[in-house]
Amino acid sequence: MHTNPLLQKLTFLHEIDRLKSVIRQSPLLDRSRKENSAEHSWHLAMYALLLQDYAVGVVDANRVIKMLLLHDIVEVDVGDTPLHSSASPNDQYRAEMQAASRLFGLLPAPESSELLALWQEFEEAKSEDAKFAKALDRVQPLLVNVMTGGGTWNDHGVSLEFVLQRYGPTIQRGSPVLWELCEQLVQQHFDASQ
Amino acid sequence: MHTNPLLQKLTFLHEIDRLKSVIRQSPLLDRSRKENSAEHSWHLAMYALLLQDYAVGVVDANRVIKMLLLHDIVEVDVGDTPLHSSASPNDQYRAEMQAASRLFGLLPAPESSELLALWQEFEEAKSEDAKFAKALDRVQPLLVNVMTGGGTWNDHGVSLEFVLQRYGPTIQRGSPVLWELCEQLVQQHFDASQ
Repeated sequence: MHTNPLLQKLTFLHEIDRLKSVIRQSPLLDRSRKENSAEHSWHLAMYALLLQDYAVGVVDANRVIKMLLLHDIVEVDVGDTPLHSSASPNDQYRAEMQAASRLFGLLPAPESSELLALWQEFEEAKSEDAKFAKALDRVQPLLVNVMTGGGTWNDHGVSLEFVLQRYGPTIQRGSPVLWELCEQLVQQHFDASQ
Repeated sequence: MHTNPLLQKLTFLHEIDRLKSVIRQSPLLDRSRKENSAEHSWHLAMYALLLQDYAVGVVDANRVIKMLLLHDIVEVDVGDTPLHSSASPNDQYRAEMQAASRLFGLLPAPESSELLALWQEFEEAKSEDAKFAKALDRVQPLLVNVMTGGGTWNDHGVSLEFVLQRYGPTIQRGSPVLWELCEQLVQQHFDASQ
């Protein structure tokens, strides 16, 4: 292990290259393939950059962007857990916490604890910044599903009620305005597919 | 075209999904495939988040992160131009400027002109923030090439002198510390491959 802070940071930056190979459930909008977690993180950061005015509380867009850039990095070790997964939340959290300790632990102080704290804040979803970040992390796949004629909802045969219940509270809590729009789009999608 | 600012922003966010399908020359570190411009932008934003202390001037890391998140968005229209390309810089800039006008033009005011200005600032590479962002945009593929046994340098049969000349000035101008390390690594790579 390096003791030079620059080399430690570069080791971390190389390690997270593997996030580009973690495949999510959601497709690209052109349906050519499934999205990976690195490009998903980029897209969410762009959402945060542009949609900050729709947060329910006062948010620091720069913190939200950073949070979203690193929110999935634990998947380098544990992979992506789909929203429709039946994995035990406790087991999942334990595995992700271990991954976060290992990965952010590659960094020197103070970045190591700063990034770990920012990841934990996202996971806990209590601060205004984290609530908004969590909302965006649900808005993006919801819109992808709507725009690709159902996307992963078709694969899992989920109902309107399930979608409203699974996405609603998280989006509503971070951005009622975005939820109002999402709810309309979801309703239209299920009406049209009946 | 929508007149509702939220719908305009979502149209833009959907349009830039195509950046995930723009393929760059650089491979992933595990050499499994080539990198796309969306995940490259995510990776560079993480570089900026962690390496800001190595900038030559005083930089605003939040602006550098934003700049790098959007620096390649014009490629949605014009594709990626490799560093070893023989395209005329003037033609390329004209095409990219047209793409920037169209894409950022999808956004409402003030974001439309704000993001266009940030992209232009990156392209002009005169401000401290842009000089550092440009340096990182060269550091990342250089490190990928070194760590994958030559990467795109092998494909193009480039020499040590060419690499030093093509990457050196841009990296040096934004971060002499990073260039010092890169220069050593490049030298070692070419020494070992002789």
